[in-house]
Amino acid sequence: MMKKKLWGGRFSKTTDPLVERYTSSIRTDHRLARYDVQGSIAHAAMLGRCRIIKPSESRAIVRGLTRILRAIDAGRWKVDPKAEDIHSQIQQWLERLIGPAARKLHTARSRNDQVALDLRLYCRDAVTYVGAAIRDVQRALVALGQANRTVVIPGYTHLQQAQPVLLAHHLLAYVEMLDRDAQRLQDALRRIDVLSLGACALAGTSLPIDRAYVARLLKFPKVAANSMDAVSDRDFAVELVAALAGLAVHLSRLAEDLILWNSSEFGWLVLDDAHATGSSLMPQKKNPDVLELIRGQAGLLIGQLTALLTVMKGLPLSYNRDLQWDKYHVFGAVDASLQGLEVLSLLLRDARIDARRARALVDNDLLCATDLAEYLVEQGVAFADAHAAVGQAVAHALRSGKSLRALSLAEWRRCSSKFGTGVVKLLDPRRSVARKRSAGSTNPAQVERALRRWRAALR
Amino acid sequence: MMKKKLWGGRFSKTTDPLVERYTSSIRTDHRLARYDVQGSIAHAAMLGRCRIIKPSESRAIVRGLTRILRAIDAGRWKVDPKAEDIHSQIQQWLERLIGPAARKLHTARSRNDQVALDLRLYCRDAVTYVGAAIRDVQRALVALGQANRTVVIPGYTHLQQAQPVLLAHHLLAYVEMLDRDAQRLQDALRRIDVLSLGACALAGTSLPIDRAYVARLLKFPKVAANSMDAVSDRDFAVELVAALAGLAVHLSRLAEDLILWNSSEFGWLVLDDAHATGSSLMPQKKNPDVLELIRGQAGLLIGQLTALLTVMKGLPLSYNRDLQWDKYHVFGAVDASLQGLEVLSLLLRDARIDARRARALVDNDLLCATDLAEYLVEQGVAFADAHAAVGQAVAHALRSGKSLRALSLAEWRRCSSKFGTGVVKLLDPRRSVARKRSAGSTNPAQVERALRRWRAALR
Amino acid sequence: MMKKKLWGGRFSKTTDPLVERYTSSIRTDHRLARYDVQGSIAHAAMLGRCRIIKPSESRAIVRGLTRILRAIDAGRWKVDPKAEDIHSQIQQWLERLIGPAARKLHTARSRNDQVALDLRLYCRDAVTYVGAAIRDVQRALVALGQANRTVVIPGYTHLQQAQPVLLAHHLLAYVEMLDRDAQRLQDALRRIDVLSLGACALAGTSLPIDRAYVARLLKFPKVAANSMDAVSDRDFAVELVAALAGLAVHLSRLAEDLILWNSSEFGWLVLDDAHATGSSLMPQKKNPDVLELIRGQAGLLIGQLTALLTVMKGLPLSYNRDLQWDKYHVFGAVDASLQGLEVLSLLLRDARIDARRARALVDNDLLCATDLAEYLVEQGVAFADAHAAVGQAVAHALRSGKSLRALSLAEWRRCSSKFGTGVVKLLDPRRSVARKRSAGSTNPAQVERALRRWRAALR
Amino acid sequence: MMKKKLWGGRFSKTTDPLVERYTSSIRTDHRLARYDVQGSIAHAAMLGRCRIIKPSESRAIVRGLTRILRAIDAGRWKVDPKAEDIHSQIQQWLERLIGPAARKLHTARSRNDQVALDLRLYCRDAVTYVGAAIRDVQRALVALGQANRTVVIPGYTHLQQAQPVLLAHHLLAYVEMLDRDAQRLQDALRRIDVLSLGACALAGTSLPIDRAYVARLLKFPKVAANSMDAVSDRDFAVELVAALAGLAVHLSRLAEDLILWNSSEFGWLVLDDAHATGSSLMPQKKNPDVLELIRGQAGLLIGQLTALLTVMKGLPLSYNRDLQWDKYHVFGAVDASLQGLEVLSLLLRDARIDARRARALVDNDLLCATDLAEYLVEQGVAFADAHAAVGQAVAHALRSGKSLRALSLAEWRRCSSKFGTGVVKLLDPRRSVARKRSAGSTNPAQVERALRRWRAALR
Repeated sequence: MMKKKLWGGRFSKTTDPLVERYTSSIRTDHRLARYDVQGSIAHAAMLGRCRIIKPSESRAIVRGLTRILRAIDAGRWKVDPKAEDIHSQIQQWLERLIGPAARKLHTARSRNDQVALDLRLYCRDAVTYVGAAIRDVQRALVALGQANRTVVIPGYTHLQQAQPVLLAHHLLAYVEMLDRDAQRLQDALRRIDVLSLGACALAGTSLPIDRAYVARLLKFPKVAANSMDAVSDRDFAVELVAALAGLAVHLSRLAEDLILWNSSEFGWLVLDDAHATGSSLMPQKKNPDVLELIRGQAGLLIGQLTALLTVMKGLPLSYNRDLQWDKYHVFGAVDASLQGLEVLSLLLRDARIDARRARALVDNDLLCATDLAEYLVEQGVAFADAHAAVGQAVAHALRSGKSLRALSLAEWRRCSSKFGTGVVKLLDPRRSVARKRSAGSTNPAQVERALRRWRAALR
Repeated sequence: MMKKKLWGGRFSKTTDPLVERYTSSIRTDHRLARYDVQGSIAHAAMLGRCRIIKPSESRAIVRGLTRILRAIDAGRWKVDPKAEDIHSQIQQWLERLIGPAARKLHTARSRNDQVALDLRLYCRDAVTYVGAAIRDVQRALVALGQANRTVVIPGYTHLQQAQPVLLAHHLLAYVEMLDRDAQRLQDALRRIDVLSLGACALAGTSLPIDRAYVARLLKFPKVAANSMDAVSDRDFAVELVAALAGLAVHLSRLAEDLILWNSSEFGWLVLDDAHATGSSLMPQKKNPDVLELIRGQAGLLIGQLTALLTVMKGLPLSYNRDLQWDKYHVFGAVDASLQGLEVLSLLLRDARIDARRARALVDNDLLCATDLAEYLVEQGVAFADAHAAVGQAVAHALRSGKSLRALSLAEWRRCSSKFGTGVVKLLDPRRSVARKRSAGSTNPAQVERALRRWRAALR
Repeated sequence: MMKKKLWGGRFSKTTDPLVERYTSSIRTDHRLARYDVQGSIAHAAMLGRCRIIKPSESRAIVRGLTRILRAIDAGRWKVDPKAEDIHSQIQQWLERLIGPAARKLHTARSRNDQVALDLRLYCRDAVTYVGAAIRDVQRALVALGQANRTVVIPGYTHLQQAQPVLLAHHLLAYVEMLDRDAQRLQDALRRIDVLSLGACALAGTSLPIDRAYVARLLKFPKVAANSMDAVSDRDFAVELVAALAGLAVHLSRLAEDLILWNSSEFGWLVLDDAHATGSSLMPQKKNPDVLELIRGQAGLLIGQLTALLTVMKGLPLSYNRDLQWDKYHVFGAVDASLQGLEVLSLLLRDARIDARRARALVDNDLLCATDLAEYLVEQGVAFADAHAAVGQAVAHALRSGKSLRALSLAEWRRCSSKFGTGVVKLLDPRRSVARKRSAGSTNPAQVERALRRWRAALR
Repeated sequence: MMKKKLWGGRFSKTTDPLVERYTSSIRTDHRLARYDVQGSIAHAAMLGRCRIIKPSESRAIVRGLTRILRAIDAGRWKVDPKAEDIHSQIQQWLERLIGPAARKLHTARSRNDQVALDLRLYCRDAVTYVGAAIRDVQRALVALGQANRTVVIPGYTHLQQAQPVLLAHHLLAYVEMLDRDAQRLQDALRRIDVLSLGACALAGTSLPIDRAYVARLLKFPKVAANSMDAVSDRDFAVELVAALAGLAVHLSRLAEDLILWNSSEFGWLVLDDAHATGSSLMPQKKNPDVLELIRGQAGLLIGQLTALLTVMKGLPLSYNRDLQWDKYHVFGAVDASLQGLEVLSLLLRDARIDARRARALVDNDLLCATDLAEYLVEQGVAFADAHAAVGQAVAHALRSGKSLRALSLAEWRRCSSKFGTGVVKLLDPRRSVARKRSAGSTNPAQVERALRRWRAALR
């Protein structure tokens, strides 16, 4: 077994099995298998081209690795829990396939070099997959808004009813948030998408390797400029997880909104039976478990980000084995993000809006108090005075147990002489929404435009 | 399949497979299997005793569950990835074993109730196992100190050599830290070791259950006092993970010290070949990977703690499905802690101290500067003045490129007239250590006593 | 100015002003002034008693420090932003008061030694103050429950109405949680309440100090056993902040519940006008800002805990200046906790329950579905079957747009032949609460007992 | 005082003083004063231009605010701790200056709207300032490398000496890291630099405001597209703090490296006396406190990021007062970052490299083992075999207590027949560095080019 280690030469004892188990990364890293092989194919091609190994050896290696890649992609690959790491397992596999030439593959690179490359390839794919899943959720939000584009709901600040808004406007706020998440992933990609391979252990190599060629083969637009940075950098992983943590926080807010709307107290959101779960004890329950799990996922992601940053804190250059923990956190973060997004798209697609319930709730004339104040401003009243006048009217209404609609003109005038007969007309939530005209407001025409713009952008 | 759900009654549609996969907890929770069965045995016994189900039914259930428990303990159990959760899988298994009586088990309890109990049982065991593993590391530290009890090393503040200390004194500092970790686990245990079962969904039950009896069977000294608290509380998990995070930070400090000592610059720690690893590129390397992984583990644990607290943040009462994430973090934290401790014990057991190298490093008479100042204090000089006088001597020595030992009495006297011929004798690190006499100091007799006390305590 | 440094001797240059400002701790540490003086008084008394300095000098120092302490307590003390730290400022003050004898105070101790002591004294007080503030909130919760002890509200799981519960039962769940927080603070106290002073720099001292005597004077039940541990340990701070983070999470849950109840959708909680705030734009708003700030505080506290643990991660022994950050986090955590608790007590004291609104919401016969299932169990039906039967009834009612109360006996019987005429009587939330009988349930007599027990315990 | 509230109208009681103190944000927000006034100037100009208020009123307001801005910039401004918030204090000030017209300023905006704008303006400036401070540190690193460009030090992996590298190469690795930090800040800027104002409470306004005009005045390239998103979004703050946390982690690594180099064991870095501090107890100490504080700052920053994300987690739309905590974390993060960078530039500028000490340490022929293996590869040996051969030689040297240089050709040949007489020449660290030729390696010509490139870029 000693033979199988890539580094046994100077050691006089074999590794303790407990230590082997503790330091073994294969239970996590097996997910990098296909990236590892891709990287090795490019590396072997370059070694041959630069005559560091013989072209025939290079070709033999590439052929062997290509067979391995196919096996992995076809699911014909089993992790060998006894392998020290994934690089070793693939190396041994290759030796069985093509014989001694395989021993030339691991020239002018170190495992640290290799694993950094593998993780970059993985993160690059993750950006693509998560980006697509974000788009799906955006589409589902736009579709739900579109299908219910005339529904007005109470808009909240401080979880107090504030002003009427279009349901679609509320949903589009999340589309905007998710767009920032997608942007952040793209920004991260610029720093993920850099070839680190060729740093070797930390100092580069005296062998005539061609990093630019490897970068071309692997489609990296950039090559890392400093070998010591290249082997010890995990910024790309931190940045990916930071973007996912931000995304998770957004999803937790959306989940909270949907959980509230789905409660019987709010009640204008109805989940499909197929996306809710029941109680083993209470026969009447229909629970939004999916949304709660998504809300909770923010905890997971914030924890992964904290962990990753803390692992890096205070590490001297260059590579330290602490970095091995990176994959635990990156994989966990990516998996959770993808699963959460996927199931959320589904849930939104089949959710139903109870327009009647929304109407009942929004039919609260206090929601239009701001419109009254703006009306007074239009009559030349200073906003501060307009606010006070309406506040007085509200206080009067609450005290006398009346709705605002029921106040007489005399009562209004007691608050401000500028109130006229048109006041009552303002106390209509649909009209309130329609009267808005500022850019980015809940005005129906603007919301319609935003829906259209997003439908186009998401096509 | 609909049949298999414990709660299908009111639903008109089966659950979507994606939702099923996302909400399924079984891939994580299978580790609770044996606790789940233990809890169910106690519950069934109680149901029979209180005549909520027939005694014969109770006996049949207990018999069936006992067989299942034996199967689990013998490793004859496979997770059914299609089961909604572990409770459901065991329930179905029981039905196959004993028939319809099984359907009476899930009386007067909810799954939330059940899983809270399971996790408490798991955490209780975790405290025991981690506690034992901490003791092992303490033993290894004491043994290493004992075996090298005359070795003096430089003691550091700010990573600058400060004063000579006994290696054993340094190691015993970690024994103290780990002792606090063990204490904290015991403190946490008081709040883990509380029976939550019997809260049912959240409000208790109208059936005449006997919670005190279940507590007795499961050896819980206390019963949770409020049913709503009982189903929504995860303090016990947070507290366990907080204790493990504190432990991980201690281990990261120990790992850092050992990594430094193992560097060629410090160099007085030699790891056994069986506990070090090599480089695939640099043939001369012998790396302390185990220690680096342990250092990095602090990141993992701090992340788990952050995650767990964040998941709980802002959740209304009582149970919310967000809580399902708790197990992911608890299991991860406990596993990493146990593995790290285990491998560390081993590494310490076989580590070797290079006494010659320690002697070479500690032989730096600047390390005894404080002894000189204390000597002046004994001559009646105010400490502030003594400090200044010695500082002056040090500056003079550095400027003139001499060691302190090489200064003439005249040179000493220029700094303070109180310096006498005895000064040079103070410039000996072994003597410095021996001269200490305050309680808790590095004085050899005191360190000897501390070693003895710990050997006794850890026996 | 060079003179004023406690350590200038060996340096050939004065400190750069920018460095001075960056490393200066006084803007934060001034809050430790009184603890620093208390510690110094005990230290000086000991130095005299042990004849390390002359008894007359010791007395002069103690007298001088006592005057300083009085000045601090009377608010006649101003931070000197130019002082390097609080120890230096007090030292200089003392020199002005009593002359050269003051230069003997800093004998046989280091500033690291001193600041560790100061922070322990601070944390000990913090435990007392926060403990008292927790009790106040518990009292306010009990009083609110007591004043509304017949009010029944919907109990929730998954934010879905689940079963009727007494409002007091819900509030008492928080009293239990807070009790665990108070316990954790007491547990932490055991490790805070340890005298660290006397470790000197890291190795102890050759001067004949008496640490046990200092411990007696400062009322510490224990003396730290290892000097290197003593100067580098911040477990006591981490543990205090961890307890406060747990507390903050509990308060965030309570805040969330109260914010929900205070929304117009739930609506059975009315805040006093003096504890709510308005909107500068929307005249009708009355916002629960206090509760939102308390909810948000959990973020602050989790962040402080993360920071403190991360600062400690990977530090070699013994003292490192990184530790200076501890106070920033400890002070921030303690201040926020105290302020949050204080304002919450007030808010709860004057909050009002709208019993009519609670009654309206709880009057939902689906809430009693579990009672129906338990009724069937009493008739000998297996719970799994009972659950299915009631689920069927619920589904039937929802489909036919009827309430459960409106179902005919025939309709009930179609679901289970065991349903009898008594069914309808079960569909009353007050009765549901009264029927519960398990320990810790929402049964009114039990809740009454719990209120009584807590009133006694909190007296 | 009631009058002074911007929202008193509907309330029948004044705010409780404790609540006032708890919810008051002015102790933190006073730092936004100048941004608040700038925003108000633009807003007032727009209100006049759109005829929402009279042009004369608009001009009066702008004039008054301009005076206030000058007063703030001149330091003639004192926080009124009794003001509810900074908006209120400025509003009152304006009223004193220009009379009733001031009451028209707060038209068509809410305080939430205002504070979001203020914070964006602050963050935009922070990006500029931190960016400049990063460049300063990069310059200092490049200058230190340049001044010592022939110095070779041991390069480390796992804190074990690995291969010789140029000191400048090591320092340039940090220049690369810091460059990514600067990039991330620029990326964040794209999302900071968006005008949120004009969202009003959450829904927009019916008054004919012109957001594009305000954006132009305040130099925002973009206007936020959705009003609900605009008032509840704090992504820009999270992203800024995330970038600063990444930066802090890099600085903690650099600090760790410098602390190590500054220890007497490594010893090739000498800090200027003006940038080090002494010990109050140990007269010989010269401590790198500045570097330790910088290392510890990573804890602070990771904590701030965690806090900010956790505050946002699970908040429903739109504005919630929890957001007030954002400024605490943003200000703390920016301040610490700026101070740390500033002091670090200084320290690096005056640090000295002890080239002799570096030479002594690097003169370890084991460091060249990889060169030997690459030499064998050039002779056609498979790397795996070359590695084994050199490993054998190393083991042989260690066992026989010889240096590699002292091995005879016969001894070399026993390991591999391909070893020739040229072997010994390879065992020279300077030659090892010179032999490297891969892109990004430590090869002197390449490092020289990198230094030149950075000097140009940082000019």
